Amino acid sequence: MGNYAEFVRFRQEMNKKILEQGNLDIKRFFALDEKTYQEGSLSKKVKELMGLSASMVLRCDDCIAYHIIQARAAGASRDELFETFSISLLAGGSIVIPHLRRAVALMEELEKSEDVSRE
Amino acid sequence: MGNYAEFVRFRQEMNKKILEQGNLDIKRFFALDEKTYQEGSLSKKVKELMGLSASMVLRCDDCIAYHIIQARAAGASRDELFETFSISLLAGGSIVIPHLRRAVALMEELEKSEDVSRE
Amino acid sequence: MGNYAEFVRFRQEMNKKILEQGNLDIKRFFALDEKTYQEGSLSKKVKELMGLSASMVLRCDDCIAYHIIQARAAGASRDELFETFSISLLAGGSIVIPHLRRAVALMEELEKSEDVSRE
Amino acid sequence: MGNYAEFVRFRQEMNKKILEQGNLDIKRFFALDEKTYQEGSLSKKVKELMGLSASMVLRCDDCIAYHIIQARAAGASRDELFETFSISLLAGGSIVIPHLRRAVALMEELEKSEDVSRE
Amino acid sequence: MGNYAEFVRFRQEMNKKILEQGNLDIKRFFALDEKTYQEGSLSKKVKELMGLSASMVLRCDDCIAYHIIQARAAGASRDELFETFSISLLAGGSIVIPHLRRAVALMEELEKSEDVSRE
Amino acid sequence: MGNYAEFVRFRQEMNKKILEQGNLDIKRFFALDEKTYQEGSLSKKVKELMGLSASMVLRCDDCIAYHIIQARAAGASRDELFETFSISLLAGGSIVIPHLRRAVALMEELEKSEDVSRE
Repeated sequence: MGNYAEFVRFRQEMNKKILEQGNLDIKRFFALDEKTYQEGSLSKKVKELMGLSASMVLRCDDCIAYHIIQARAAGASRDELFETFSISLLAGGSIVIPHLRRAVALMEELEKSEDVSRE
Repeated sequence: MGNYAEFVRFRQEMNKKILEQGNLDIKRFFALDEKTYQEGSLSKKVKELMGLSASMVLRCDDCIAYHIIQARAAGASRDELFETFSISLLAGGSIVIPHLRRAVALMEELEKSEDVSRE
Repeated sequence: MGNYAEFVRFRQEMNKKILEQGNLDIKRFFALDEKTYQEGSLSKKVKELMGLSASMVLRCDDCIAYHIIQARAAGASRDELFETFSISLLAGGSIVIPHLRRAVALMEELEKSEDVSRE
Repeated sequence: MGNYAEFVRFRQEMNKKILEQGNLDIKRFFALDEKTYQEGSLSKKVKELMGLSASMVLRCDDCIAYHIIQARAAGASRDELFETFSISLLAGGSIVIPHLRRAVALMEELEKSEDVSRE
Repeated sequence: MGNYAEFVRFRQEMNKKILEQGNLDIKRFFALDEKTYQEGSLSKKVKELMGLSASMVLRCDDCIAYHIIQARAAGASRDELFETFSISLLAGGSIVIPHLRRAVALMEELEKSEDVSRE
Repeated sequence: MGNYAEFVRFRQEMNKKILEQGNLDIKRFFALDEKTYQEGSLSKKVKELMGLSASMVLRCDDCIAYHIIQARAAGASRDELFETFSISLLAGGSIVIPHLRRAVALMEELEKSEDVSRE
């Protein structure tokens, strides 16, 4: 996952390059991917936690990082995140554990950066 | 997935046989799996929808059937189920579609059986 | 995979129901999925064979059936299909074999139905 | 998984057709796949149980059926099979459970057919 | 994926060590894996693009890097690579995106090194 | 996988943080995961090699590292480890190869550290 700032920077830089390439199908997929997580019958927060559990059982560190950031921005509490981790762990098994370790490391990094910005 | 009644019957019969075998680790896993979906910081309904999205991206028809049944029993609406399907489809890709077809067929079967029992 | 006619019928019936539900994200995904396989820098045939190899390593019988049908309609020969199987087998391992067996059974069913329609 | 006799028949019939097609890479893969499970530093029984746990976490019913049959033929006991199930369940998570149910159903079918042939 | 030169070096060094160990089954698998991608009814280029799409949906960064290098050496254009990415994205879903970002980063590194060697 | 010492340190530090959070379901899962690998009808060594093959086909580098360390501590020889690799490679396909390279690199690091501690 690398550290938080580097993850955000690389994601932004490469997404820009991918979209500039001009492949229409990829562009549409990216747009649709964002639209799907907007508030609907289910709240933005619940949708992001769902994206998080899907990312954990599929074991994608970058996707986990992204949905933790989004879920927290949408108001998810630490307990809600850990209950999401717990469901993902039971559904996906012990192979989820290394990703859980990296997820918790990211959460701590995020919380520290929020503390700093609050001072 | 077979039809709904047969799914429920086979699930019940085989779970009983598995637990009677006396392997303690498996017994504990089954108990823990049930406990994880109980009401907590997240509602039972949200947890079941999360279990559903995890099952869809991991493409497990029986798990999908089980969580649809549980989510509906916990009050999930048709729209909430379809938003869960939509997130699962975007996260897991077009290989989720055959499971989506079987999920919708099960939903219709469930709704019909509810109509009958209401008469 | 069931037999060929039943596969086509169920696919058509359920896709119709899914699209009628009116979830826009799912509708757009279905449209995009079809568009991606259209002739481009790569031919339709090559794209379908690519969809086939992706489906085999992800072990999705319905997706395999669909892409075999499409690849044959786009002119793929038996040898080209078997070379696609061979790459999928090496990349995805022996767990691909049961899907390969069902793929070959479908191919034979397709070839027989073509022989009949030619008479 | 269907029932045991049908699984064995279809497997045999389709493997024959696949090998007759004359794709050399596929033929070599099939030969290598068989060779790998032969007695070595690890016993045949341990290798089959390993193949079983790999098949369970990858959730391939036909592969599970095949390795249960082979493991039993190599002398694996019911307890050894259930300990293999237990490790697979913990590693692969609750999505392994539907496959576990079908695995136990097959085991019972196998045991019954052995009882009959012993009389 | 690390950077291109390091990927090639580590791959070479470790493959050598693996083959020197003298496990015959592993040696044969490596040989067969290489043979499968040779020109046949399908061209080398198409086979490498197929290996690329299989690697993307299975989300294996090193495999993606390897097949991009091979596909370019076999003459695949930027557009053909992006159409392969597009099919992989639709088939495998948004969890493919982080691998797509790293794939494009590698492509750019490759193109730069070619520009340098051309001067 | 990073290097061996860093892997062990990060694993220990983060497991501690995860367990301190007080989510009971996660705590129970961790306890159950450890219990499952204890000596039973199958030896500790065989169970760890099984955990290793499951980790390889699921392609989890940290899980592979952990089970190699545990299997060696339980007395597994180099040949037994390579036969486990070989089964995993055949079952999981060529996408297992990058993980095999990192597994062998870890094994060599482990063997060197044992040589040093013996002097």
